[in-house]
Amino acid sequence: MIEKLALIGIGLIGSSIARGARRAGLAKTIAISTRRAETLDEARALGLGDIYTTDAAEAVKDADLVILCSPVGSYEAIAKQIAPHLKPGAILSDVGSVKGHVVDVVGPHVPAGVHFVPGHPLAGTEHSGPSAGFADLFENRWCVLTPPEGTDPGAVETLSAFWKGLGSNVEAMSPGHHDMVLAITSHVPHLVAYNIVGTVDDLEQDTKSEVIKFSASGFRDFTRIAASDPVMWRDVFLTNRDAVLEMLGRFLEDLSVLQRAVRVGDGEALETLFTRTRAVRRSIIAAGQETAAPDFGRPHGDAKPAEPGSE
Amino acid sequence: MIEKLALIGIGLIGSSIARGARRAGLAKTIAISTRRAETLDEARALGLGDIYTTDAAEAVKDADLVILCSPVGSYEAIAKQIAPHLKPGAILSDVGSVKGHVVDVVGPHVPAGVHFVPGHPLAGTEHSGPSAGFADLFENRWCVLTPPEGTDPGAVETLSAFWKGLGSNVEAMSPGHHDMVLAITSHVPHLVAYNIVGTVDDLEQDTKSEVIKFSASGFRDFTRIAASDPVMWRDVFLTNRDAVLEMLGRFLEDLSVLQRAVRVGDGEALETLFTRTRAVRRSIIAAGQETAAPDFGRPHGDAKPAEPGSE
Repeated sequence: MIEKLALIGIGLIGSSIARGARRAGLAKTIAISTRRAETLDEARALGLGDIYTTDAAEAVKDADLVILCSPVGSYEAIAKQIAPHLKPGAILSDVGSVKGHVVDVVGPHVPAGVHFVPGHPLAGTEHSGPSAGFADLFENRWCVLTPPEGTDPGAVETLSAFWKGLGSNVEAMSPGHHDMVLAITSHVPHLVAYNIVGTVDDLEQDTKSEVIKFSASGFRDFTRIAASDPVMWRDVFLTNRDAVLEMLGRFLEDLSVLQRAVRVGDGEALETLFTRTRAVRRSIIAAGQETAAPDFGRPHGDAKPAEPGSE
Repeated sequence: MIEKLALIGIGLIGSSIARGARRAGLAKTIAISTRRAETLDEARALGLGDIYTTDAAEAVKDADLVILCSPVGSYEAIAKQIAPHLKPGAILSDVGSVKGHVVDVVGPHVPAGVHFVPGHPLAGTEHSGPSAGFADLFENRWCVLTPPEGTDPGAVETLSAFWKGLGSNVEAMSPGHHDMVLAITSHVPHLVAYNIVGTVDDLEQDTKSEVIKFSASGFRDFTRIAASDPVMWRDVFLTNRDAVLEMLGRFLEDLSVLQRAVRVGDGEALETLFTRTRAVRRSIIAAGQETAAPDFGRPHGDAKPAEPGSE
């Protein structure tokens, strides 16, 4: 059990950690810090922690585990601010979607005696903010840790046990490897989804209305991904540029081949690819990372228009 | 109520029509025809109809409504085969994802006195075959009809009432307009999803295993779309080439701009797009075409590895 846990940032991920840690009894005291007073008020109203402050330096005081849960672009400034206030022996971690950049900008500020163990829970929804979090978010999902060489194994073990307590499976790898794997599993898919939804948004108004109306198949799924937090994703692309451009390059090469197959009417090439891809989904279901239910288990026959103001 | 309904093809869509029509009492007799004897046996075992035959000409005999539910590439041959056996006054329709091509290849074979009203229910899942269908599939989904000019309004009305009986909303438009709207809402998203899953499938084996393992975010959703029926989708791209290439061209132009924004680190451009796209999803939810639940309402915390052999 952690004596004092400090969460810097309390959006979807931070608030899910707070809820999960509270439910599983993983931390005695939870300190919550975020820059905006309204967000902090929201966290307080939800009863997510024990200590609430807009001052990150105050939140980390005496904390045994500090987790940065704000967008990656804010990490460097936060690291500078909290560094002098970190307790010797404390573990400093994060939940950012890129890891090489985090090591580069946070690492140099970590004082001797503090254990820096970057992390990334592969979990989330398209919603954001403190009220979007839930205690089950990390269950049966992977959390990747990227401890720099020479990190104290005890600190890695403590953090690993914390994530397992939240329901996660934990795996360690190098930051560079993490960033390449995530570029293709997450970053390029998001870029492509944002792009296609943008293409639709640029259509003439009449066509656009019809696309929204008739969005049942395919496009609708892309809009979920493209509804993810804009600032978080801006930061991902600003900080994992090389791996994203490398994987995007492969994707575009392949798409040129496919475009040509459509143009020349090469049905055999199309059918071969479409058969191959089906097997990949089966592997993901077999790996326990996806529901086998059709259409994600999405409700059929009872989708109702949302209440005004709900999201 | 239709006296005799004939379904030519009994996969996900055909079997969902059969189940829905039976449940709602829309047809007195349902004749089911499919080319492969095993598929017909499966349909019979499921009790989907009243008459079962591998001979489409026999199935359409005396039928008041004939719906082609096989892949679009099979339509021309089927139209030739059934044309002499269609009852005068019968309605001939289909469920194909492209409409211009269907008008071109089926239209010329339709005998005088038979009403040809092409249709396309915008509904489906990534599963296929007779057992994948369910009666709720069309509820609250759109069905687009593309009657050629001069079609008997009574026949359009009868078909429209049939689809409304299955729970659908019905709208009529021209085949060309349908094909352009569907190219961007459905065909290009499928092409892109197939492509990215193919890119992953081409990665070195080690990386590929990790991508599958860590597929939680983004990529996992694409694999659902890319698990759709290969033959059906081959036919879509072979028969809606011009509209697909036009929309793919727009998509690629936009992607080049986005690629450049990533390369030069233009955070403002990225954030602006990512904010804009969020609004599109809200419109789809407001239009009642999507669940407001996070992550499609996908189960969290209880995804279990699938049973071997289940899909």
